[in-house]
Amino acid sequence: MKSIKALVFDAYGTLFDVGSLSDGAERVFPGKGLGVSNGWRAKQLEYTWLRSLMHRYEDFWKITGDALIATCAAMKLTLDAKRQRNLMEMYLKLPLFGEAKRALEKLSSVPLAILSNGSPMMLEEMVRNAGVERMFRHVISVDEVKTYKPSAAAYELAVTKIGVEKEEIGFVSSNFFDVAGAKAFGFRTYWVNRSGRTADELGVSPDRIFRLLSDLLE
Amino acid sequence: MKSIKALVFDAYGTLFDVGSLSDGAERVFPGKGLGVSNGWRAKQLEYTWLRSLMHRYEDFWKITGDALIATCAAMKLTLDAKRQRNLMEMYLKLPLFGEAKRALEKLSSVPLAILSNGSPMMLEEMVRNAGVERMFRHVISVDEVKTYKPSAAAYELAVTKIGVEKEEIGFVSSNFFDVAGAKAFGFRTYWVNRSGRTADELGVSPDRIFRLLSDLLE
Repeated sequence: MKSIKALVFDAYGTLFDVGSLSDGAERVFPGKGLGVSNGWRAKQLEYTWLRSLMHRYEDFWKITGDALIATCAAMKLTLDAKRQRNLMEMYLKLPLFGEAKRALEKLSSVPLAILSNGSPMMLEEMVRNAGVERMFRHVISVDEVKTYKPSAAAYELAVTKIGVEKEEIGFVSSNFFDVAGAKAFGFRTYWVNRSGRTADELGVSPDRIFRLLSDLLE
Repeated sequence: MKSIKALVFDAYGTLFDVGSLSDGAERVFPGKGLGVSNGWRAKQLEYTWLRSLMHRYEDFWKITGDALIATCAAMKLTLDAKRQRNLMEMYLKLPLFGEAKRALEKLSSVPLAILSNGSPMMLEEMVRNAGVERMFRHVISVDEVKTYKPSAAAYELAVTKIGVEKEEIGFVSSNFFDVAGAKAFGFRTYWVNRSGRTADELGVSPDRIFRLLSDLLE
């Protein structure tokens, strides 16, 4: 088996705590924070898949905004311009998981990269706001190939940018569908399953499963 | 504008009442019927999208079974072989919406067809069990193109089979994503929104929205 020459991380849910949006959403919509944040995230992913299949790409900022509008409409919540701006800005300031930051600081033996659905603007702001821009040799957005994970073209982009073979890339995600797509593409895959979720039945299994990102250090 | 020369219907949720599964699921998992049936349906669709994007097609019978397994696992419900068979067989005996049957009987001015994600076996059994096999000139499964809606290839199959231009096909679905895909492809689209759902934000709008299938008769 080839040795790992680069580690590539998913951003949303893996390095950055998307779940933290429920607190912010709770401030905007008291009593509905968890429902809004869960619905928003589910719609956001659904739209990436549907638009990829329909070949009607829009960038992740647009999709994230559309998903918020649809979620609030379905929940009969009034999303005025101020609330919308407030919630969208939270997406640019998502916190790193504390344990992720500690793990990243120690994972210096191979180059690190991010491969994310996020638009270049979103990733740049989020990485800078978290103060980790110097930790990653590459911050790669699927925007360049105008399709979303788990399309092979999204993973192929990381191979092109990093310049090592796909079998030499270790891919880390907390999103099972993302691990499945990366595995189907040919990466070595590590599923970080912080919340004890059950695996999806997609005909592929991660190479390794960890509870925390810091377990990668072993 | 060209006149409509064929009407093509989605099956699950449009002609056949997928929501009826909650009663059957309630008998198998008392107190959890609605949760199981909603989760099952959501996972089933999610898997069609993910597998289409990953180019790892499996037919809808396999995907429906996988979605049931994953849903029960996530809900920590024990799915033994008997329960699994029991629930899967419900998918072959879904009832037609009563108003759908009455509407179909009157829509005889143009040829009618079904275009569905369902596998050929599933569609054949379900249509025969409902006693409507003679109403449809074509019962078309996406299985032939090994991808799912809303891929353009799925809708293109209906054009090929029916032999009229896509602008001459009226496409009817209760699933918004399906209407969006059909509209993006080039069909005339009718969204049957029985349960008063809000539209998704996918950059396309149905040509017409009806509350009931029988409203098509107007």
